[in-house]
Amino acid sequence: MTKQGFDLVLRDAVLATAGDTCRADLAISDGRIVQIGRGLAPGLCEIDVAGRVVTPGGVDAHCHLDQPMAPPVKLADDFFTGTRSAACGGTTTVIPFAAQRKGGTVQAAIDDYHQRAEGRACVDYAFHLILTDPAPAVLNEELPRLIKAGYTSFKLYMTYDALKLSDGQILDVLDVARTHGGMAMIHAENSDCIAWLTRRLEAAGRTAPRFHAVSRPTLVEREGAHRAIALSELIDVPILLVHISGGEAVQQIREARAKGLNIYAETCPQYILLTAKDLGTDDSYFGARCVCSPPPRDASSQEDIWQGLADGLFTVFSSDHSPFNLTGEDGKTPGGKEVAFRHIPNGIPGIETRMPLLYSEGVLGGRISLNRFVELTATQPARAYGLYPQKGTLAIGSDADLVIWEERDFTLSNEHLHHAVDYTPYAGMQLRAWPAMTLLRGQIVWDGANFAGSPGQGKFLPRGLPSLAPPSARKGAQPAWR
Amino acid sequence: MTKQGFDLVLRDAVLATAGDTCRADLAISDGRIVQIGRGLAPGLCEIDVAGRVVTPGGVDAHCHLDQPMAPPVKLADDFFTGTRSAACGGTTTVIPFAAQRKGGTVQAAIDDYHQRAEGRACVDYAFHLILTDPAPAVLNEELPRLIKAGYTSFKLYMTYDALKLSDGQILDVLDVARTHGGMAMIHAENSDCIAWLTRRLEAAGRTAPRFHAVSRPTLVEREGAHRAIALSELIDVPILLVHISGGEAVQQIREARAKGLNIYAETCPQYILLTAKDLGTDDSYFGARCVCSPPPRDASSQEDIWQGLADGLFTVFSSDHSPFNLTGEDGKTPGGKEVAFRHIPNGIPGIETRMPLLYSEGVLGGRISLNRFVELTATQPARAYGLYPQKGTLAIGSDADLVIWEERDFTLSNEHLHHAVDYTPYAGMQLRAWPAMTLLRGQIVWDGANFAGSPGQGKFLPRGLPSLAPPSARKGAQPAWR
Amino acid sequence: MTKQGFDLVLRDAVLATAGDTCRADLAISDGRIVQIGRGLAPGLCEIDVAGRVVTPGGVDAHCHLDQPMAPPVKLADDFFTGTRSAACGGTTTVIPFAAQRKGGTVQAAIDDYHQRAEGRACVDYAFHLILTDPAPAVLNEELPRLIKAGYTSFKLYMTYDALKLSDGQILDVLDVARTHGGMAMIHAENSDCIAWLTRRLEAAGRTAPRFHAVSRPTLVEREGAHRAIALSELIDVPILLVHISGGEAVQQIREARAKGLNIYAETCPQYILLTAKDLGTDDSYFGARCVCSPPPRDASSQEDIWQGLADGLFTVFSSDHSPFNLTGEDGKTPGGKEVAFRHIPNGIPGIETRMPLLYSEGVLGGRISLNRFVELTATQPARAYGLYPQKGTLAIGSDADLVIWEERDFTLSNEHLHHAVDYTPYAGMQLRAWPAMTLLRGQIVWDGANFAGSPGQGKFLPRGLPSLAPPSARKGAQPAWR
Amino acid sequence: MTKQGFDLVLRDAVLATAGDTCRADLAISDGRIVQIGRGLAPGLCEIDVAGRVVTPGGVDAHCHLDQPMAPPVKLADDFFTGTRSAACGGTTTVIPFAAQRKGGTVQAAIDDYHQRAEGRACVDYAFHLILTDPAPAVLNEELPRLIKAGYTSFKLYMTYDALKLSDGQILDVLDVARTHGGMAMIHAENSDCIAWLTRRLEAAGRTAPRFHAVSRPTLVEREGAHRAIALSELIDVPILLVHISGGEAVQQIREARAKGLNIYAETCPQYILLTAKDLGTDDSYFGARCVCSPPPRDASSQEDIWQGLADGLFTVFSSDHSPFNLTGEDGKTPGGKEVAFRHIPNGIPGIETRMPLLYSEGVLGGRISLNRFVELTATQPARAYGLYPQKGTLAIGSDADLVIWEERDFTLSNEHLHHAVDYTPYAGMQLRAWPAMTLLRGQIVWDGANFAGSPGQGKFLPRGLPSLAPPSARKGAQPAWR
Repeated sequence: MTKQGFDLVLRDAVLATAGDTCRADLAISDGRIVQIGRGLAPGLCEIDVAGRVVTPGGVDAHCHLDQPMAPPVKLADDFFTGTRSAACGGTTTVIPFAAQRKGGTVQAAIDDYHQRAEGRACVDYAFHLILTDPAPAVLNEELPRLIKAGYTSFKLYMTYDALKLSDGQILDVLDVARTHGGMAMIHAENSDCIAWLTRRLEAAGRTAPRFHAVSRPTLVEREGAHRAIALSELIDVPILLVHISGGEAVQQIREARAKGLNIYAETCPQYILLTAKDLGTDDSYFGARCVCSPPPRDASSQEDIWQGLADGLFTVFSSDHSPFNLTGEDGKTPGGKEVAFRHIPNGIPGIETRMPLLYSEGVLGGRISLNRFVELTATQPARAYGLYPQKGTLAIGSDADLVIWEERDFTLSNEHLHHAVDYTPYAGMQLRAWPAMTLLRGQIVWDGANFAGSPGQGKFLPRGLPSLAPPSARKGAQPAWR
Repeated sequence: MTKQGFDLVLRDAVLATAGDTCRADLAISDGRIVQIGRGLAPGLCEIDVAGRVVTPGGVDAHCHLDQPMAPPVKLADDFFTGTRSAACGGTTTVIPFAAQRKGGTVQAAIDDYHQRAEGRACVDYAFHLILTDPAPAVLNEELPRLIKAGYTSFKLYMTYDALKLSDGQILDVLDVARTHGGMAMIHAENSDCIAWLTRRLEAAGRTAPRFHAVSRPTLVEREGAHRAIALSELIDVPILLVHISGGEAVQQIREARAKGLNIYAETCPQYILLTAKDLGTDDSYFGARCVCSPPPRDASSQEDIWQGLADGLFTVFSSDHSPFNLTGEDGKTPGGKEVAFRHIPNGIPGIETRMPLLYSEGVLGGRISLNRFVELTATQPARAYGLYPQKGTLAIGSDADLVIWEERDFTLSNEHLHHAVDYTPYAGMQLRAWPAMTLLRGQIVWDGANFAGSPGQGKFLPRGLPSLAPPSARKGAQPAWR
Repeated sequence: MTKQGFDLVLRDAVLATAGDTCRADLAISDGRIVQIGRGLAPGLCEIDVAGRVVTPGGVDAHCHLDQPMAPPVKLADDFFTGTRSAACGGTTTVIPFAAQRKGGTVQAAIDDYHQRAEGRACVDYAFHLILTDPAPAVLNEELPRLIKAGYTSFKLYMTYDALKLSDGQILDVLDVARTHGGMAMIHAENSDCIAWLTRRLEAAGRTAPRFHAVSRPTLVEREGAHRAIALSELIDVPILLVHISGGEAVQQIREARAKGLNIYAETCPQYILLTAKDLGTDDSYFGARCVCSPPPRDASSQEDIWQGLADGLFTVFSSDHSPFNLTGEDGKTPGGKEVAFRHIPNGIPGIETRMPLLYSEGVLGGRISLNRFVELTATQPARAYGLYPQKGTLAIGSDADLVIWEERDFTLSNEHLHHAVDYTPYAGMQLRAWPAMTLLRGQIVWDGANFAGSPGQGKFLPRGLPSLAPPSARKGAQPAWR
Repeated sequence: MTKQGFDLVLRDAVLATAGDTCRADLAISDGRIVQIGRGLAPGLCEIDVAGRVVTPGGVDAHCHLDQPMAPPVKLADDFFTGTRSAACGGTTTVIPFAAQRKGGTVQAAIDDYHQRAEGRACVDYAFHLILTDPAPAVLNEELPRLIKAGYTSFKLYMTYDALKLSDGQILDVLDVARTHGGMAMIHAENSDCIAWLTRRLEAAGRTAPRFHAVSRPTLVEREGAHRAIALSELIDVPILLVHISGGEAVQQIREARAKGLNIYAETCPQYILLTAKDLGTDDSYFGARCVCSPPPRDASSQEDIWQGLADGLFTVFSSDHSPFNLTGEDGKTPGGKEVAFRHIPNGIPGIETRMPLLYSEGVLGGRISLNRFVELTATQPARAYGLYPQKGTLAIGSDADLVIWEERDFTLSNEHLHHAVDYTPYAGMQLRAWPAMTLLRGQIVWDGANFAGSPGQGKFLPRGLPSLAPPSARKGAQPAWR
C-alpha cells in the first residue's frame, strides 16, 4: 500500500481459492494482490463486488494460437483474437505451443512464436515447447538451456506423422526432464492403430465425420496411456497426460496413481459435454464441427471423467482450443464442402467457454466444489507449469488476475464469443454463469459486456519448474538401471 | 481493525493453507484473522515471525479425554491435561467422544461430558457422539435434535462388546444421517473374527502383547471396511472410516472411491511410524506400550498409508489419543505387572506428537507437501465435522488459531510432553520440527518452552454440517429401495 | 467283461468328458464302464448311438427335496418325484440337504432324511448337511464322525433367521473343515441388510414380488461373498460359494482367486436366463413364480455369470431346485392369492431343466465348450463333493451314468416335466436339445419319451473328501495365529 | 484290433488326461490308441505298467531347432539331437519355427526348414511360422494359402531388430488370422525400452550378464503385453502371449480375461525355477548360462507364474528351448571368453527337462494337479495349435504317444541329457521323477536308460485350426470399425 492508498480495492467479495472460500475485501497495487481482509483502507479505485464469487483468473494450459499448420489448414485465432476470447471467458494466462520443425532447432520455433505473440496478446502468456525432433543437440544442449530460460514444459506426441516420437525418443526426452526438471506432456494415442483403422474405413467408403470416432476407439487411448505410463515409470519422472477422454484411460491412470507413480492428467470440456453422437450419423457432415482428437466418447466415459474431476484424478482442466473455421476454405468443411474425416482438421474452439462451462455444469451443477473448480482451472495449471504463485491463486503477492462471477441463465451462441472462429460446438447450451468482470494484473479486460483490454497488454511469462504436490509419497530409490 | 489498530500482527510469516503458501503479515482482532497482506497497519502487539512457516492450529478429530471406562482402567488425561498437551503440540481444537451408555440417552452422555470439560479445557472443543444403543427414541427424536443442536457426528463401532452395533443398527443410524445430515464415523473391524482368534490364542497360551496384532490381522480390518462401505452404499450416505491401518483396507477404500462412493477415511501417526514389531516378541511384555486397535502393521502397509496421505485418499489425520498409563494400576501393565494381551487397554497417547511427527516425517521427509499437511491436520478435519471456516484455515474471519513452526532436530522423550501419561511410544525418535508458538483465538497458549494457556480458556463449539468436497461427482439417483 | 460279453455296449458315440471328446464304443458291465474303444466285443444288449453326443450323467449338487419346512409351506417334490424329474433331464446323482434343527443333532436330521429317501429315490443320492447349530458337541464329535462316515459337505447360511450362523460360528465350522476335511458351502448374503430393506419396503406398502429383488440388491451378495472369503482366508480352508448371481460377487471371487485363495463357486440357470424383470411390475403378482434367493439380476450380471462359466471361475452349475407350487395352498400364491414378497417361498424348480438349458444356451449357443459343460454339470460337482471318479465322468471303472443327447428344437412347457410342481419359470423358452436317453449305472431311466426307472432304484452314496484341483498354487505357510 | 490282437497293450496303468485319472489297460494298434479298459484282449506285445502314471506324450509348442542364426551364433541342436532330447524327456511332438527372411517369402523358409527336418527328426513335428515381413503378397496370398496347408500358427515379435513388426504390421497379420483362422503368437516386450536401457548400461560399462535382466525389467514385458492385448481386442481375434515371465504381465492377462478377451498365454520352466540372481553378480560372467529373454525374475513373479499355472491363466507350458553352447565359439561365452550381455545369445536349453521339471516341482511338489500337468504340457498345446485330438491326449483314435512316469529322486546333471548343448541351467537341481518310457505312435523311443528311436522316425504334421475352449463367453458383436 502506497501512501496514496491501494490502486484498486474490491469490496465484499466471496474469494475462492483452491483451499478456501471467505468473504473479504481484496486490495491491489502495482498489479498485485497486496492485502485481503475486512475493513481495508480505501483504494484509488473501488469495485463493490456485493457478495459475488471472485476466483483467480483462469490459466488455460492447453490451447493453440497462430500455430503454423500445413496449408490450406489454418488456425483462425492469432494471439490477438485468441487471447481476447480468453479474457472475455475469464482466462488471464494462456500457454500455447511453440512447435519445433523436424530438422529445425527449438529456438527457431520459439523466436518465431515470440514474433507472433508480441504486441498482440491481450492476456499473459507462456510457451510450451513441442518437440518433434529430439536430436542429440536438442537433448544435450538446447533443451537444458531452454528449461533454465523458463520454457519448462514440452509436449510429446505419440501420434500424427508430422509430430510423433518413437518410444525411444520419448525416453530420451523424459530422461532430460528427470535431470533438468520440466514437465513432459504426452498426447497418448496409438498411432498405428489409428492409421490402420483409418485406411480400413476409407477403403470401405466410411468417411463421414462420425467415423473419426470409430478410427480412434477408447482402447487406442488406453494403450497410449498405458505405454506412456510405463515410459514414465521406467525413467522415474512425472508426466502429464493431456486431454484424457475415455473411461479406459482413466482407469489406467487410477491404477498408476495407486501404485505411487507420478502421473498427472488433463481433461477438457468436450469430454464432459459432447459425445460421439455429436459427430453425426453416417450420412451427416454436420458433425465436422465436433471433430477433435481424441474424439468425444459416450455417457459412461463422461461419468468417468466427471468422477476424475471430482476426486482429484485430474490435475488440470484445459480447453485444447484449436480454432478451425467450420465453413472457411481453411477449415473443417472447406468452402462448406464435405471432406472425408481424415481431412477434417482435428480440434474445436473453446478458450472462452472453458471456465463458464465448468462453472455452470460442475459447480452449479453440483458435480464439483467451487474450490476444486479453482484448483482445476487456475491453481494447478499454474503449479504444473511453473507459474505459481505468480498466477493461479488469490494470495498476497500474486498477480491480481481475477474473475468476478455472475450467475445468470442464458443460451450460448457463437455471437457471444470473441474468438475468430465461425462457430462454437456448444451453441444452444444453457449456461448458468459467466464472468461479470475479468481483471489482468488489476486491469479490467472484460467488463461483462465488452472486451476492455488491448493487444500487447499481455506479457510473456518465463516459467519456473513445476511445483505441484506429487501424488506419490514414495521415497525414491534409484531404478536398477541408473 | 479498530481505530486503535489490530490486537496482534504477525509480521513476515510464510502462511500455509490447504491451497496456498505465501509470505505476508497477518492481523488479528477479537480473536479472529482480519487481514492478511503486506504492509499491514500496526497491532497493539506484534510478533516477528521472520519467515517461519505458520499453519492453522491443528484440529484433532479423534481423541479420548476423560471418557468413562470400566474400572480399574482409566484414561490418564482429563480435559485439562489432554488439551494442555494438545496446545503444546500445535493443536487448538479437539473433538473427543461423548459415549452413550447402553440403555441411556445420548443427552445424558453429553451432559456428563460437558461437566467434565467445562472450566478445564485449554483449547476449543466439540463432542462427537458414540452411539451404542440406537433405540427408536434415539433415532427418531434425540439424534435429529442433537444434530440440529450442533452435535453433527457420531461414531459407530463394529467391534468391542460394550460398543458394537449390528449391521442393521448401523443402517438405522446411517439412514438418520442421510435425512438429517451429520457424519457417521465407523470403527471397522470384524468383531467375531477378533473374538475367535483371541480365544484361540489364549487357549494356546499365546498371550504376550505381540499376539494382540495376531488377533487382529489386516483382513479383519479389510472385511470391516468392505462391509461398512457396502452399508454406506446401500443407504447412499457418506461415511468416514476411522484409524485405517492396513494396505488391504486402503485398497477397499480406493476401489470404493473409484466407483464414486463418498467414503472418507482417517489414519493416525501409529500407522506410519510403528509396526507390529513394536509389540515385542513372544516373551516380551514391553510391547504393551504399543498396543492399540487396529494394531500397527508392517512396512508395506506403512507405504500404503503414506501413499494414501499423499494422494488424497485420506481425508483426515488424527491422533486417536488414548491416554493409558503404562505402569499405573489403571494402565497397560497394572502396577508393572504383565497381563494377557486381551486385558491390555487398547490405545496409545499421541495428541501432542501428532502434528510434529507428520511435519517432521511427512513435510520435511519429502512425503507430502506443506499444504497437504495443513489439509490433513486442520482444514479437512474442520470441514468434515462442521467447524469450517471457523476452524482449520487461515482465512479472513476465521479464528486466529495458529502454529508457528520451528525446524530443529531433537530426540523425543516423554519429558517433552504435557499429557498425564507416563510414556510415549515415540520416545527416542528423532524429530525435525516443533511448534515455536501456538495461538488460540489470538492468545498464546504455547510459547515454545512452556504451556501458556489456562484451564477454561477453551470454548465448546457447536458444529454445523460437514462441508467437505465429496469425492464423488455422481448426480444422485435415488436408490431403488427408496 | 464276463465271458458272456458285456452287459451293454453303446456303439459309435461321441463321448465327451471334461477333458476330451472322442468317437468310440463304450461297454458296460455290472453297472460300470469297463471298456472304451473301437471294435469292442458284443454286449448282451447294444445301443446304436449313431454319432450322438454322450456325456456323463449330471450331478446336481444343489437341490431341495422333501426338506421339512415351516407349515403351510411345503416342497412339492419328494425323493420320488424329484429324482424322477432329475432322471428325465439327464441328472443321475442328486445331493439334497439334511438340515439340522436348532437344538437338535445332525444325526437326527440324517436319520430322518434317510427315511424320506429310502425306497423312493430314482437316481443315486447323497446328503449335504445344513448346520444351524454348531454347538461344541457338533463341532468336536458329531461333525468329525459324520465326515468320516461320508457326509463330507455342509452348508452354512449367512441369512434366514432360522438358519443363519454368526461369523464366529462359521469360523468354528471352517476350522473343523480344515482339520477333518470336507467342503463348506456358504449362502452368502447380508442378513441384516435384507431384513432392513424388507422392513422399509413393507412399511412403504411396496410388497409386490418385484420388491423381492429390491430387498436383496447385488451389493448384499457382494458383501456376503467378501465376508465369507475373508473367513475362509482367515482359517486357510477352501469354501464354495453357492448360487452366485451378480457381477459384483463375481468380481470378489475373481480377486480372491487372483490372490491364490481357494474359493470355489456355483451358479444356477436362473442367473443366466432370468432377470429381475421376470419378477414383474409393481402391480403384478405374476412374478411370484420367479422369486428365488438371490434374485435374478440384470443383463450385465448375466454376462458376468456367462463369462465365469466359460473361463473357469465357476466350479459347479447346479439347479438350486426348490419345488414350491405356484397356486397350491402350500405355495407361492397360496390358493392363487397374492401375498407380500416376504411371504413368498424363496426358490424355483429346475432339477430337470438344468442340463438341457445349459446344453442349449451354453454349448449350442456358442458360449461354452462341450467339455466345459461336462465339467460344470458332472465332473466338478463330483470332485467337489467327494463322488469322483465313481460319478461325474466317463472313465474306466466309473458308474455307467450316461446321457445321450438329441439336438431338437422345441418350446418348453411344464407338461414336458416330471416334477410335482405346477409350473416352470422357463415355460415358453425355445430349447435346442434334450436327453434322448439317461442311464443310471447301465440301466435306462429315461428313454426319451418316458420315465423308465423306478422308486428305490437310486442308491445312497457315502462320499469321500473333495478331489478338486485347487485354484491356488500356494505352498501353505501356517497362518500366524496357528 | 486286428484279428491277431492289438499291436501293444499296456497293462494296469494309471491313465491321466486333462480331465480324468483312471486305472486301466490301454491297447494300441497301428500307432493309435484303440481301446482303454479292463480286461483288454492280449497284444502282440505287452508292457506291465504296474500302476505307474501314464500321460500323453508332451507337445513342446515353443522350441528352436536348427534355426538359421546370424554367424557366428549357431543353435547347437539340429532336428536330430533336439528331438532325441525331447523324446528322452517325454516329449513326442515339437513345433519349432520356420522363420521368414525379410524380403523373402514364407514358403522359402518352410522349404528350407523341411529340408533340415526331413530324415532327422525323432519325434513328430510341425512348423510355426515366424513372420518378419508381412508384405501384401504375404498377407493376401501366401499366409491364407499356408493356413489352409496346415501351417496354422505364426509368431510375431515386438522386439529384436531383425524380427520385430510394427503395431500396424501386427494388426495386418491379426486381421488375416481373424479371416482365415490360425493362432498368432506374440513375443511381447517393448523394443525401444530395451534398446534404450541397453545403450545406457553399456555406456556406463555395466555389461555383465546380470545387466541383461536390468535391460528388460518387468514393466517392459507388461507394456508389450498390454499393447498386444489392445491390438487383439481391436481386431477381435485371439492371441497367445508366449513366455510370460513377470507378475505384472500376468496381471494384464488376468484383467483381459476378466473382460472376456480371448487372450491365451504360455510360460516356461525358467520362470518358475530361475531368478535374476542366477544371472550372477556385477563381476560374474558365470550368469551367461541363464541369459534368456524375457529374463528370469524374482520370487514374487515365480509365485504369480505358479498361480497362473494352477488356476488356468496359462494355456501352455513350453520350453522355449534355445540351444546355445556355453563355451563354444558359437555360444554364450565364445571360446570361454566373456562378452557384454548384449552379445550373449538369448536363450537356454530345456526341451528334455520341461516335463520332468514340472512333474517334479508342480505335481509332486503339490502346486498343480496331475490333470493340469497333462493339460499344460500336452492337451492344450495340441488344441492351441490344431493337433488335437491326434496329439495331446489319451483318447480312442489318438496317436499312441505316451509317457510312463517313474518317481525317483536324483540330482540333474548335463550328462543325463541328450541334447547337443554343453550345459543345462538346471544342473544340480533335485528331481523327483523322470520318464521310465516314452512311446511315439506305439514305438518305444526312450526306454528309461537309452534313446531307443531313430532319425527320420518323426513325421511332419500338417495342422488344423485351433480347438481351444475360448476363455471368453462373449457372443460376438462386430467391432464398430468392421
